[in-house]
Amino acid sequence: MSEIRKDPVTNRWVITLDDRNFKPATDYGAGGNLPENDKACPFCPGNEDKTGKTIYSIKSSGDKWQVRVIPNNNPYLKVETQLKNKGVGIFDIITGTGANEVIIETPRHDLDFDRLDMAHIVSIIRTYRDRILDLKNDTRLEYMLIFKNRGARAGETVHHLHSQLIAMPVVPASITDEIDSSLKYFSFKKRCIYCDILENEMLLKERLVKETEHFILITPFASQTPFEMWILPKRHTPHFHGINESETKDLAYILKEGISRMNKALNRPSYNYMIHSAPVKAGELEHYHWHLEILPRVKPLAGFEWGSGFYINPTLPEDSAAYLRGITLP
Amino acid sequence: MSEIRKDPVTNRWVITLDDRNFKPATDYGAGGNLPENDKACPFCPGNEDKTGKTIYSIKSSGDKWQVRVIPNNNPYLKVETQLKNKGVGIFDIITGTGANEVIIETPRHDLDFDRLDMAHIVSIIRTYRDRILDLKNDTRLEYMLIFKNRGARAGETVHHLHSQLIAMPVVPASITDEIDSSLKYFSFKKRCIYCDILENEMLLKERLVKETEHFILITPFASQTPFEMWILPKRHTPHFHGINESETKDLAYILKEGISRMNKALNRPSYNYMIHSAPVKAGELEHYHWHLEILPRVKPLAGFEWGSGFYINPTLPEDSAAYLRGITLP
Repeated sequence: MSEIRKDPVTNRWVITLDDRNFKPATDYGAGGNLPENDKACPFCPGNEDKTGKTIYSIKSSGDKWQVRVIPNNNPYLKVETQLKNKGVGIFDIITGTGANEVIIETPRHDLDFDRLDMAHIVSIIRTYRDRILDLKNDTRLEYMLIFKNRGARAGETVHHLHSQLIAMPVVPASITDEIDSSLKYFSFKKRCIYCDILENEMLLKERLVKETEHFILITPFASQTPFEMWILPKRHTPHFHGINESETKDLAYILKEGISRMNKALNRPSYNYMIHSAPVKAGELEHYHWHLEILPRVKPLAGFEWGSGFYINPTLPEDSAAYLRGITLP
Repeated sequence: MSEIRKDPVTNRWVITLDDRNFKPATDYGAGGNLPENDKACPFCPGNEDKTGKTIYSIKSSGDKWQVRVIPNNNPYLKVETQLKNKGVGIFDIITGTGANEVIIETPRHDLDFDRLDMAHIVSIIRTYRDRILDLKNDTRLEYMLIFKNRGARAGETVHHLHSQLIAMPVVPASITDEIDSSLKYFSFKKRCIYCDILENEMLLKERLVKETEHFILITPFASQTPFEMWILPKRHTPHFHGINESETKDLAYILKEGISRMNKALNRPSYNYMIHSAPVKAGELEHYHWHLEILPRVKPLAGFEWGSGFYINPTLPEDSAAYLRGITLP
């Protein structure tokens, strides 16, 4: 029997079906063996001169880089552009001021998160934080969006582990919606909606994949796709960049857990993740709570889903969570 | 130089680039010759017994059907299900009550809209209206969503011209957002925002592709993808099912124009369209205006676009409109 579930934050409706015959590893995904170094890959060591100059890097041993940040070579937004708002008839337009950086997450061409060691993933998370803290100094910028497109189905163009940062003079609609909606909930209940989700999921446990000292990994109640996962920090804080040392190490662990379990369950699917954080200029909002959303791209997005904001998910989130919990990692 | 544009209704931001080197017909799309009748296709004449029984049809000559409506054989929602709302912890859930119908739009396996004659397209539009009017009698249902997935990239599973109708006990998020936002605009300006867009586009003409007695066809100001098109009725009315005879004929003409120009410009791309209409139980809303949105699927949706509601469109809507206007149809 199908159910229609409502996401309590976005108010998005999802029809969830009860397909117990799903066979994740064969239905979806694609594996593949890659060389450690690909001479044609612009992100591989040896090709540093083919990209823009290094904005930031973390070295491992000697002079070798472990994580390296470069400008996108076709940037959508440029820091040099003067910020200007104008009206055109009834419409609003802003000049393309901002920044667009690529975070190359390992020198190895062949590795995904599940093969990186914990200290390396800690470096990646520090890089995300440090780039936000730096760009935050440019007061024209309102939002720093960190996201990963991994695999062709997820919109990846260079198949070498990387994320992107887009710094923009406006706040994306999905974040505005989450903040507006969380504020309504807070006005009514005097509690953060994400804190309530956290309590609820730790109590019920049916959608809980993993719990650590500082985070939980869950399949959200109104998952848009099979095996969608969220990482929620236990400490209420609106900004990802407010993460402390102990949380950084813990996030590295739970992110690796999530990606590893997903990769094993779905045979290395294409996936996206995105950090949802409050706008940089917002204060210590009591009603908003940063988190990370992981979206395996195992199901093509039908046009009507894109157009309507109404989703069909063939797999119950509780079944996805049970499957992910049951995975044995090496 | 890039611009950041805001959709005045959804408040969605789109980075529009100014790529004058786009070559639509070779960059995108895929042609293909198909047989008039495919024995393996469940929607072709001769295979009527392979589908559920006919819910509605329009006959052409003799006993032959021109348009035929059948139930989806894997319905997401069922009329027989008892409607029940319940809370699960802090979450909301509704039983999967509703209907899911397939509108087979021609007996011919090989035809898209651009090869159907006008009277035939009028029958298709009447079918949309008649199915909504019928399902509207079930007072448990709040919304009838009519949409088309054409081509694999658009989520089509049977390649034979058809649309789908999902009747549901809730209103999809994109419609709720449009209505809430239009209401805010109306409270402020005492005018319908879509009426204002209509005036604006007829005056400026740069995004106008076609104008008829009752409709305009435009590329919207904050288009999410190259060659996105909207059809807006000139008469303010919230419900598509309130369409009159003269408008039905005119809509058939302008819809055929839009699909034909797009097919010629982009070499028969995958596309979706969706009718945005007020919820069936809503009255004669002064602030909401039904319309039809056409989305050619010429650019894969990057994960971050899905997750953020922040889009990147490499082609200026004004360039798309100029290109579409310049197409010569046979």
